[in-house]
Amino acid sequence: MALVVQKYGGSSVESAERIRRVAERIVETKKAGNDVVVVVSAMGDTTDELLDLASQVCPSPPARELDMLLTSGERISSALVAMAISSLGAQARSFTGSQAGVITTSAHGKAKIIDVTPGRVRAALDQGSIVLVAGFQGVSQDSKDVTTLGRGGSDTTAVALAAALDADVCEIYSDVDGVYTADPRIAPNAQKLDRVSFEEMLEMAACGTKVLGLRCVEYARRYHVKVHVRSSYTDNQGTYVYGSMEDIPVEEAILTGVAHDRSEAKVTVVGLSDQPGYAARVFRAVADADINIDMVLQNISKVETGKTDITFTLPKTDGPLAVEKLTKLQEEIGFSNIVYDDHIGKVSLVGAGMKSHPGVTATFCEALAEAGINIDLISTSEIRISVLCRDTELDEAVRALHEAFDLGGDEEAVVHAGTGR
Amino acid sequence: MALVVQKYGGSSVESAERIRRVAERIVETKKAGNDVVVVVSAMGDTTDELLDLASQVCPSPPARELDMLLTSGERISSALVAMAISSLGAQARSFTGSQAGVITTSAHGKAKIIDVTPGRVRAALDQGSIVLVAGFQGVSQDSKDVTTLGRGGSDTTAVALAAALDADVCEIYSDVDGVYTADPRIAPNAQKLDRVSFEEMLEMAACGTKVLGLRCVEYARRYHVKVHVRSSYTDNQGTYVYGSMEDIPVEEAILTGVAHDRSEAKVTVVGLSDQPGYAARVFRAVADADINIDMVLQNISKVETGKTDITFTLPKTDGPLAVEKLTKLQEEIGFSNIVYDDHIGKVSLVGAGMKSHPGVTATFCEALAEAGINIDLISTSEIRISVLCRDTELDEAVRALHEAFDLGGDEEAVVHAGTGR
Repeated sequence: MALVVQKYGGSSVESAERIRRVAERIVETKKAGNDVVVVVSAMGDTTDELLDLASQVCPSPPARELDMLLTSGERISSALVAMAISSLGAQARSFTGSQAGVITTSAHGKAKIIDVTPGRVRAALDQGSIVLVAGFQGVSQDSKDVTTLGRGGSDTTAVALAAALDADVCEIYSDVDGVYTADPRIAPNAQKLDRVSFEEMLEMAACGTKVLGLRCVEYARRYHVKVHVRSSYTDNQGTYVYGSMEDIPVEEAILTGVAHDRSEAKVTVVGLSDQPGYAARVFRAVADADINIDMVLQNISKVETGKTDITFTLPKTDGPLAVEKLTKLQEEIGFSNIVYDDHIGKVSLVGAGMKSHPGVTATFCEALAEAGINIDLISTSEIRISVLCRDTELDEAVRALHEAFDLGGDEEAVVHAGTGR
Repeated sequence: MALVVQKYGGSSVESAERIRRVAERIVETKKAGNDVVVVVSAMGDTTDELLDLASQVCPSPPARELDMLLTSGERISSALVAMAISSLGAQARSFTGSQAGVITTSAHGKAKIIDVTPGRVRAALDQGSIVLVAGFQGVSQDSKDVTTLGRGGSDTTAVALAAALDADVCEIYSDVDGVYTADPRIAPNAQKLDRVSFEEMLEMAACGTKVLGLRCVEYARRYHVKVHVRSSYTDNQGTYVYGSMEDIPVEEAILTGVAHDRSEAKVTVVGLSDQPGYAARVFRAVADADINIDMVLQNISKVETGKTDITFTLPKTDGPLAVEKLTKLQEEIGFSNIVYDDHIGKVSLVGAGMKSHPGVTATFCEALAEAGINIDLISTSEIRISVLCRDTELDEAVRALHEAFDLGGDEEAVVHAGTGR
């Protein structure tokens, strides 16, 4: 008997009506002869509403209490889905992340899954129940407090459960059809991909593709969980994410898609000493503020001044804090000034195929140049090329690359106003 | 150091503003040098809203899932109160009923507390925290599932915690000032009682007084928990409920108050055989439907017919079901017909003093007769007299008794539009 893990995002369960439809799909999956475990996000905007309520009673809520509060959302939706399933005549039991054995670190708001011990889930499945698990949460190994997992936490919960239960597939349902060669709202002839390797999906997630979170894909890769990204509004097959790109025969390796990202900002530390150690002090200052840096460029120093500039990108939401921290250390570290630019866009080409196809970088740059787009910063990996450009030119850059590498199909993509939730 | 347990009902925490006020009171209690444990109900109408949501996805929700759903309400409010407390500079941690060690039977929706093992609560108190506990819930000893405790469950949670922690007092906060000699909305000169014994409070709760639930008072009596019923809107002293009436010196024993109840209906089984066993079959049929019977009257049988009538009262909400069950068994048991009356009221006089004062029953009946009120059924205990009358005459009956036994004060009672929540 196959075991299927499904995950439904917030918009898929945003109302009583949607919950009933999701319940029908779940029961069909069970009737087809599968054991079914379903991870559920909170209904629609519940999490935002709870955050708003919290801000009304406390400007800076303690992280532990925020987790106690927010986890109510998934508890409510998983119980409701269980009820809807039972009204269709099937058995269902809901569990919190803690009850389902999702063990995490103690970092409230961004906990990481350490282990999954799904004993109660397995027992309920063996009794013939469909099992609902509240997503986005677990329990701290040390303090036994309830924790939330940060953005994309429900996807990670689903993949982690699939790994622990040795599931045949982990279906991630949202309001988008699958993974596309580019965002169909920008490149209307984008095609839905049938399959993407783990490494390629990791790159796409890191480069702005929202449909699956980075941690979720990392987890799937480590534990070899087959992920199927699908729409909860149709029965269409979506995109399978599994397998290593190493297993793709060289001649079949292709360029997978174009990703874009508007969420970053750029910081340039100007006139930094060129001596060893100074760049490190800049990065340490930023890291101490718990800020992740993405792309880095150190310009060639001017011999006559012995000074150089360092440029890096980071999430826009962390921009002001990073500037503040560095400014405080200006005298101590020693630099002229900081330039902050939050009107950048990042566009990336991802594909296992570029390993074996020289000239991809050249074609990439030519395509952007022909479109009149200035490249600000370039960064590459074995299977990815990313550049920064003006955010106003980002859509054009996506289309130029999508065209240059012939990624489009003949038909217009079916476009939902999807958020990927 | 004294340990104070406080319980705040739904209307006391119905908004962010009320939550902040409650947090201020809690912090003051802590600053006065006490350890403080606070049991919280769900905000305002949250429980009803969750029930409504449940009914939209499922006409008859499984009891286990309903408990998973409803317990979110108290989780949310206790986390919010903890946040509000921390914004005032004090430490606070919230726990679910399960985390606080409230162990119950498995009866979802009406579980009974078996034991309370408050290890985590005690540890948090020792670390200097104010502790919040989600009310109305616990965890089943057998299945480890989350359970809810039925009506008045948060009061019972508070008293049970107070017993387990050996608290000095258990303060029950609602929007009423305390326990009165009668409902002030009916008898404007009703006085607030300073103190009521456990047995008297039990009778009053059983006879319709809503401010404390029956199970909560039973628990307090068994474990000798001193209860203080107060308003969350003022700093006034309320009513203390503690001690056995046996400890009240005879000369001090008084009549405590008049209770009234509109929630019952009356069922009369007409023309039942007078032989042994037939009455029992009627009561068994009702009990099998899980319906509690309150007052019972068996009329004197008519010798010539060998038939009699049995009358009993029960909650109005169970009335139709009881009539249905008995009607189905009409031929089997053998009776003429059933009369159903849901326009009855029950008025009761409670007081340890009636044990030692003969003539109370006579005064009681005379007072009602003088007010022109017909007595339909009478039932007494050592410290209580209850009668049924027409529901339209109930308020008048309350006033007549309150007057006849001189229970009123000189001042008009301060009347909130309180619901006792």
